Amino acid sequence: MNRDTLTTLFKQVALGEIEPEDAAERIASLPFEELDFAKIDHHRQLRRGFPEVVFAEGKSSEHLLGILDHLASRDTPILLTRVDAAKAEVLAAAHPTLTHNALARTMHRGAMPATGRGEILILSAGTSDLPVVEEAAVSARVLGNEVTVINDVGVAGLHRLAAARDAIRRATAIIVVAGMEGALASVVAGLVDVPVIGVPTSVGYGASFNGVAALLSMLNSCAGGVSVVNIDNGFGAAVVASLINRGPAALREARE
Amino acid sequence: MNRDTLTTLFKQVALGEIEPEDAAERIASLPFEELDFAKIDHHRQLRRGFPEVVFAEGKSSEHLLGILDHLASRDTPILLTRVDAAKAEVLAAAHPTLTHNALARTMHRGAMPATGRGEILILSAGTSDLPVVEEAAVSARVLGNEVTVINDVGVAGLHRLAAARDAIRRATAIIVVAGMEGALASVVAGLVDVPVIGVPTSVGYGASFNGVAALLSMLNSCAGGVSVVNIDNGFGAAVVASLINRGPAALREARE
Amino acid sequence: MNRDTLTTLFKQVALGEIEPEDAAERIASLPFEELDFAKIDHHRQLRRGFPEVVFAEGKSSEHLLGILDHLASRDTPILLTRVDAAKAEVLAAAHPTLTHNALARTMHRGAMPATGRGEILILSAGTSDLPVVEEAAVSARVLGNEVTVINDVGVAGLHRLAAARDAIRRATAIIVVAGMEGALASVVAGLVDVPVIGVPTSVGYGASFNGVAALLSMLNSCAGGVSVVNIDNGFGAAVVASLINRGPAALREARE
Amino acid sequence: MNRDTLTTLFKQVALGEIEPEDAAERIASLPFEELDFAKIDHHRQLRRGFPEVVFAEGKSSEHLLGILDHLASRDTPILLTRVDAAKAEVLAAAHPTLTHNALARTMHRGAMPATGRGEILILSAGTSDLPVVEEAAVSARVLGNEVTVINDVGVAGLHRLAAARDAIRRATAIIVVAGMEGALASVVAGLVDVPVIGVPTSVGYGASFNGVAALLSMLNSCAGGVSVVNIDNGFGAAVVASLINRGPAALREARE
Amino acid sequence: MNRDTLTTLFKQVALGEIEPEDAAERIASLPFEELDFAKIDHHRQLRRGFPEVVFAEGKSSEHLLGILDHLASRDTPILLTRVDAAKAEVLAAAHPTLTHNALARTMHRGAMPATGRGEILILSAGTSDLPVVEEAAVSARVLGNEVTVINDVGVAGLHRLAAARDAIRRATAIIVVAGMEGALASVVAGLVDVPVIGVPTSVGYGASFNGVAALLSMLNSCAGGVSVVNIDNGFGAAVVASLINRGPAALREARE
Amino acid sequence: MNRDTLTTLFKQVALGEIEPEDAAERIASLPFEELDFAKIDHHRQLRRGFPEVVFAEGKSSEHLLGILDHLASRDTPILLTRVDAAKAEVLAAAHPTLTHNALARTMHRGAMPATGRGEILILSAGTSDLPVVEEAAVSARVLGNEVTVINDVGVAGLHRLAAARDAIRRATAIIVVAGMEGALASVVAGLVDVPVIGVPTSVGYGASFNGVAALLSMLNSCAGGVSVVNIDNGFGAAVVASLINRGPAALREARE
Amino acid sequence: MNRDTLTTLFKQVALGEIEPEDAAERIASLPFEELDFAKIDHHRQLRRGFPEVVFAEGKSSEHLLGILDHLASRDTPILLTRVDAAKAEVLAAAHPTLTHNALARTMHRGAMPATGRGEILILSAGTSDLPVVEEAAVSARVLGNEVTVINDVGVAGLHRLAAARDAIRRATAIIVVAGMEGALASVVAGLVDVPVIGVPTSVGYGASFNGVAALLSMLNSCAGGVSVVNIDNGFGAAVVASLINRGPAALREARE
Amino acid sequence: MNRDTLTTLFKQVALGEIEPEDAAERIASLPFEELDFAKIDHHRQLRRGFPEVVFAEGKSSEHLLGILDHLASRDTPILLTRVDAAKAEVLAAAHPTLTHNALARTMHRGAMPATGRGEILILSAGTSDLPVVEEAAVSARVLGNEVTVINDVGVAGLHRLAAARDAIRRATAIIVVAGMEGALASVVAGLVDVPVIGVPTSVGYGASFNGVAALLSMLNSCAGGVSVVNIDNGFGAAVVASLINRGPAALREARE
Repeated sequence: MNRDTLTTLFKQVALGEIEPEDAAERIASLPFEELDFAKIDHHRQLRRGFPEVVFAEGKSSEHLLGILDHLASRDTPILLTRVDAAKAEVLAAAHPTLTHNALARTMHRGAMPATGRGEILILSAGTSDLPVVEEAAVSARVLGNEVTVINDVGVAGLHRLAAARDAIRRATAIIVVAGMEGALASVVAGLVDVPVIGVPTSVGYGASFNGVAALLSMLNSCAGGVSVVNIDNGFGAAVVASLINRGPAALREARE
Repeated sequence: MNRDTLTTLFKQVALGEIEPEDAAERIASLPFEELDFAKIDHHRQLRRGFPEVVFAEGKSSEHLLGILDHLASRDTPILLTRVDAAKAEVLAAAHPTLTHNALARTMHRGAMPATGRGEILILSAGTSDLPVVEEAAVSARVLGNEVTVINDVGVAGLHRLAAARDAIRRATAIIVVAGMEGALASVVAGLVDVPVIGVPTSVGYGASFNGVAALLSMLNSCAGGVSVVNIDNGFGAAVVASLINRGPAALREARE
Repeated sequence: MNRDTLTTLFKQVALGEIEPEDAAERIASLPFEELDFAKIDHHRQLRRGFPEVVFAEGKSSEHLLGILDHLASRDTPILLTRVDAAKAEVLAAAHPTLTHNALARTMHRGAMPATGRGEILILSAGTSDLPVVEEAAVSARVLGNEVTVINDVGVAGLHRLAAARDAIRRATAIIVVAGMEGALASVVAGLVDVPVIGVPTSVGYGASFNGVAALLSMLNSCAGGVSVVNIDNGFGAAVVASLINRGPAALREARE
Repeated sequence: MNRDTLTTLFKQVALGEIEPEDAAERIASLPFEELDFAKIDHHRQLRRGFPEVVFAEGKSSEHLLGILDHLASRDTPILLTRVDAAKAEVLAAAHPTLTHNALARTMHRGAMPATGRGEILILSAGTSDLPVVEEAAVSARVLGNEVTVINDVGVAGLHRLAAARDAIRRATAIIVVAGMEGALASVVAGLVDVPVIGVPTSVGYGASFNGVAALLSMLNSCAGGVSVVNIDNGFGAAVVASLINRGPAALREARE
Repeated sequence: MNRDTLTTLFKQVALGEIEPEDAAERIASLPFEELDFAKIDHHRQLRRGFPEVVFAEGKSSEHLLGILDHLASRDTPILLTRVDAAKAEVLAAAHPTLTHNALARTMHRGAMPATGRGEILILSAGTSDLPVVEEAAVSARVLGNEVTVINDVGVAGLHRLAAARDAIRRATAIIVVAGMEGALASVVAGLVDVPVIGVPTSVGYGASFNGVAALLSMLNSCAGGVSVVNIDNGFGAAVVASLINRGPAALREARE
Repeated sequence: MNRDTLTTLFKQVALGEIEPEDAAERIASLPFEELDFAKIDHHRQLRRGFPEVVFAEGKSSEHLLGILDHLASRDTPILLTRVDAAKAEVLAAAHPTLTHNALARTMHRGAMPATGRGEILILSAGTSDLPVVEEAAVSARVLGNEVTVINDVGVAGLHRLAAARDAIRRATAIIVVAGMEGALASVVAGLVDVPVIGVPTSVGYGASFNGVAALLSMLNSCAGGVSVVNIDNGFGAAVVASLINRGPAALREARE
Repeated sequence: MNRDTLTTLFKQVALGEIEPEDAAERIASLPFEELDFAKIDHHRQLRRGFPEVVFAEGKSSEHLLGILDHLASRDTPILLTRVDAAKAEVLAAAHPTLTHNALARTMHRGAMPATGRGEILILSAGTSDLPVVEEAAVSARVLGNEVTVINDVGVAGLHRLAAARDAIRRATAIIVVAGMEGALASVVAGLVDVPVIGVPTSVGYGASFNGVAALLSMLNSCAGGVSVVNIDNGFGAAVVASLINRGPAALREARE
Repeated sequence: MNRDTLTTLFKQVALGEIEPEDAAERIASLPFEELDFAKIDHHRQLRRGFPEVVFAEGKSSEHLLGILDHLASRDTPILLTRVDAAKAEVLAAAHPTLTHNALARTMHRGAMPATGRGEILILSAGTSDLPVVEEAAVSARVLGNEVTVINDVGVAGLHRLAAARDAIRRATAIIVVAGMEGALASVVAGLVDVPVIGVPTSVGYGASFNGVAALLSMLNSCAGGVSVVNIDNGFGAAVVASLINRGPAALREARE
């Protein structure tokens, strides 16, 4: 219910088409998201056409099937993250149109139209980081972005960044996926002029504390321009990068 | 040294103007940043005109004076962060053109030209977070951004966000500064369609562990679009927001 | 042994029915709970009719069967928590009158009479929190309370709280079950005038540290009225809420 | 703005006293708390007459004076917590009607009328816990509760609990304040039938980790009925206990 | 009230000297420690003549003076630990008979008679550990033990242990005080046949985490016979060593 | 080689029965423990007849079989701890004389003669702590002690301690085994006059952090006389208690 | 491309054999490691003939096979670490020339020529540390070092070090592998004059926190000369020891 | 006492010059370090001429003066670390020949002769790390090494490493001093072929946790050849580097 429909309601009251008490009741009983507060809820507006994202970890296959049955009837894109192999088998049987990426542990259908200003570049430190890289890549594509991935650019192989020149030039945001000491985020941020979103991974052992070492390293980056998401949170990094790449609705519209 | 100057060098060798050994020596002894690798160092290019930023904590007044003497002769903006009262007094006496913001613990001179696509909005949860808010605001302005600040929008006063509607509409990035349980970042991210940069603050006591509670809260945000910088790192958030607001050089140029 | 039986004993001594030495021996050899100290042990008094609660984790099926054999002969309600599937199968075979809730990992028989002043409302942030929600709900019902459960009221779906209006009005205590950043406890506490018992859950990954992020978030709530129980401790929250809902014995009796 | 005033508005529109567009504007521009959503905001209703509480830590004396100037003109009770000696001196000079409790680090004026069903009992383990005890006691009294305090009931002096019998009988909620190993909360909870709110304190040294040991001890209490607030958070415990003691508005009204 | 006085009471009732109701009241109103439960409270019995020990940290000088006024009238030994210089000055002025040990931060008067079976040996790793060593030594002596102290027996100077042969032979318990990596406890425990009580100290920096490294090292000792008290807890180690040295009351009496 | 055998050696040299060079070689080639240093190594002397203890965790069945083959030929008692079911089966097949305690995860053969001054009492908080209790009990018995075990004496069932009176009177050391909040160690230490050895267990969940809560609780015990061993370290507690119960060699001999 | 080949290139240009533009292109398109920067990359020079090391954890068998196919065609040594049993079986089937060490979890082929100045000595505290010892030993040998291993030299068996005299004399670096309290590193460092590289292992339980206790112990060593690598990082210790044993290229060449 | 003197002793006994009992006594009463075990104590031999190093933190000025009076009479070099300003003033007054470095917080006199094979290179990430750099540099020089220091080589200024080429070529060990995210150690280790000793510093704030972030980063370095010492432990790094630079005694002698 936006201001227009609200004005219409008042007009109907003024015309005697609706009783004042009925009109008051109608507003009072509206679901919250219909209230005027939604005016600042650009996000909700944005989400029209936005993929429905389901975090599958900790949900039973039964719950997931129920959610999918609900979603499948809409025409928006669908994305499930953290789908383990057993659940994926169950879901795929019931929803064969879903694409399953076993490495990324994602299932998805469709994608938003690409409206970004540039590309999202994903750099990773090592091949052990691939599951997180894939989750970020699948997510960013479903969210409507062009994505380039360059793997295995560890601190011991920085020269491979040279091959990334063109991709860096096209990027509006760079996702750096790294475990162990996570130094790559700092090194990359020192070389580029776009925001770097660090994704620490749980790759490592011992005093890596399942990604804490990389997390702290990225949070304390001495190079400006690094912000961080949760350990192994490829999806989260994709959302942030996507919001950067697309820009706010107002600017997107201005571009159109 | 880019490819052109390299070609020129080879031509001089071909013409006998330079001996092969001397040419080889010349390349070998070049500072690293002159090598072709610099081609992807857009950051460096960007930094022309970028303020020199000095982290004053842990540096003696003598060291800071030495650095300032070096910087003052250039015409770029200057920004010092984490300047305590005692150092500020010493530095102000020697460099009276520096503006001192005691709350933000910053000193600065000049600012970059504003080239952003929109504004940076800074929201804070409580008045105890003000020093970090101010550091972010001063930094973002020196970095060449329009900045709006709305304080004291805690979870218990979310309705004040309504007053922020216009600012939210103008924002290309939102910095959320919050201590204690840091829930504000999640709540805001659920309402907007631009990236939210969370700055956990050390405001709190006991099990806030000097900001760790807020940090973890923001890292685990169930709302998409939140990335995080270090505890109390107002400056870092400003750099990230600034990179988002301005966009990469290529796009900036395209806009011009 | 309360004051009355004690007086009776003294009277028997005064009447010569019992020798002084025998009477002294009788008191000295009483189990501790029979001593006068029990006068302040309202809890014990309360527990008459209170369900026997067994924490099954770490106990072998043999131990549990032994305990159940002991309990089954009494007519009080029985509640077992943290019963995994394997143990549940063994116990159900021997005690078919026990109701097994696989999601809650509980088994129970009977319930206390409902004597509360109102209802207990359980709100959860996401469907992954359901096992903890169920443990709290089963426990609260066995403890003699009316219970309403509203799931999936995450920070990104606060508007669903509107549907909870009536339940909130009926509630004397609200249990908020949330993992990840646990912000829901703060948000709810800002909207109601009854105590909020936060149950952080281990739902999440990476820097959620198995529920520590949610735990810290709730402990540092900027909204008054939140207290917290252990991670995933649905049962513990139910006990606290139950004590609030029923009030102390003296007041309950006054109500009757 | 409740449903009545909303109906009135519609009637005015129906009568032509207000133009439909103006009426729509009026709703759209209302502060959020005026919207119908406030219907579930019992807390806000409750807060009429509720003391304004200011957390002074991290706020400058200037900010606090500004807030106090704002509050002093209202006739509600005022409570400031975490006021150190220096700030207290400044505030007392400007607002001599404020009562300063140096041990509790509180300043307050007035109190809510006592409407609780019983008393709040505060038990502490040692005399080093007194500042937290006092903060809880002052807060609970300002919030309109009868309060009894019994100090120094450590695990090594449990027999003193006997002296607390009557107070325990009158209590609707018990606040247990304890540092070091914090065992008192468990021991007390095993003896009573009202909720125990544990306040771990930072009293201790070494592996007490400034209250973490007591916090964990209370969170893991093997006795049912314990919930916990932040370390040293006497005020927070008082709010929880106060909500328990008073009960929800509906029940209060029913009692009246 | 032991069984004898209880029997006497019953006899008085039997003789009609006391009314049954009055006798019942008399038992019901006894302080808890007078009840028969005290029969297993050997500690209490032991404490007759035991020094009163006051932990001064976190207590104001006023509180301490009040406690001392109370204690000074008894003829038992007195021990205060963690008395900082400022408080010591105030207390010494009012109670000049107290002996102040500035290094140990203790004040004491008198000591229990020495009834131990042997000596307590205190070994320390370095001279920085001296304050904790002194606290342990003063405490152990006031508790009635012969004490030998050998300092500076770090892992790099194990040969000095040779000089400790006779002391080791006389010891019934050995207190090992060590900071940094705390290896001394393990090394000593590998060489002796009496219990080793490890006292980790906060000596160190960086990753010693104020004694946590030494604490963990001692808890994980690969040599049998080491148990541990809190960081810097010289007093606590002295109590444990004293209980070992003296043995339980029954055995002490058998020795006499 | 003690001083007597050394003197004998010199005498043989003096008598010409052994050549000086051969005698020097004999000393030089002695294993280190045979050197005079053994004079302060009472432990080693003690270990004659002491059971060989093998920590089986992390050792392969092959390694364990090798060690057992070596040990089986001696006539000293043998004790293996942390033997999981699979290894136990392999070892039992090869060494049928070993007694396997599945709950304690121990295997042993024989025991030292009981030479202690009294008994070791083991108290546990709950039945989930039984594996650790059993490890302590088996170990203490193999080490030559009389042992009494009383289980399930949680803080909510302190009255059961009354049944422990006689055992407490006979005890020279008390082992308290408790998980969750570990308060039992403090409560027991407040009632007895012998050393309490706290064994925190990993029983619990969430913020028990696998025993850390109980560990910290015990380390911060406000009751004197508690020292602590590693989490779940029943064996370690048995060694400490055994050393206390038996006393140093010198005193043992004096008793004989 | 070193300075010689660069000079050659310039000479070819001078001779007209190569066009200046082509020469510039050739440099510009070289992979980074071919650039002159390699002049300070002694490591890279060293790596000629250096084994390719692959960290197998977190990589799928498919990825590993791909990498091995790539490596197998070169004639350099190959080393894989952290190869679990399942992957080892797959890889061994495809590459039968690889030697598999199941205890060390390594696979390797060939080794560098031994050019060290002495030997690497590996000491371990217990047999449970063997997997880490083996990883270090295999790695050090493949890296071209003479290696001596002495196991089971715990703090309780220091005398066995006597047997290590000759090995200590030959060692240029000593790797100490120890879990639990990790005291061995300090003890050894106090006895030798070569660098000690501590490898904390995850051997232990409870408060060993999977190797953190040993890690902290080694980091806080009171004996000079200890530096530390990650928990269980036998390979990393071998690399450090190898660099020490071989010395920098310049010195190696001087020796030749 | 080595085998020769032992043989001599036996011969004297054989000749009747010494009584067997006296000879036995002589061995038994030898200080431990005189025993044959000292044969492997190369360290002790090495320490002849080695500076006496005193860790001043936690020691009173009085203790330090006592130690210095003892040391000053020897002719060996002296080094004190962690001397704060107040102590330095006291010590300098009494021992004017000591050189005080206020930044490094060291005092020293003399130095060992330089016998290293090359130089020690110290690299630091930022000027805030200078105190630790200075402590390392002073220590390394007093320990008899040539030292080169290059500061401010952060990840954002890696090109400055080019200026370090010659120093890198001369180095036998490189100390990398870095706070914040500590990435420099990994980056440097990827470029050189000598051991890198990482010194994490407490420079930073928030989630740097006083150096823990840098410590973890260095421990998890993905580049081989990094080992780590304690946070801020410049002295410790200097000892390790010195041992590497000098090599074991045997090799040093072979070089001479």
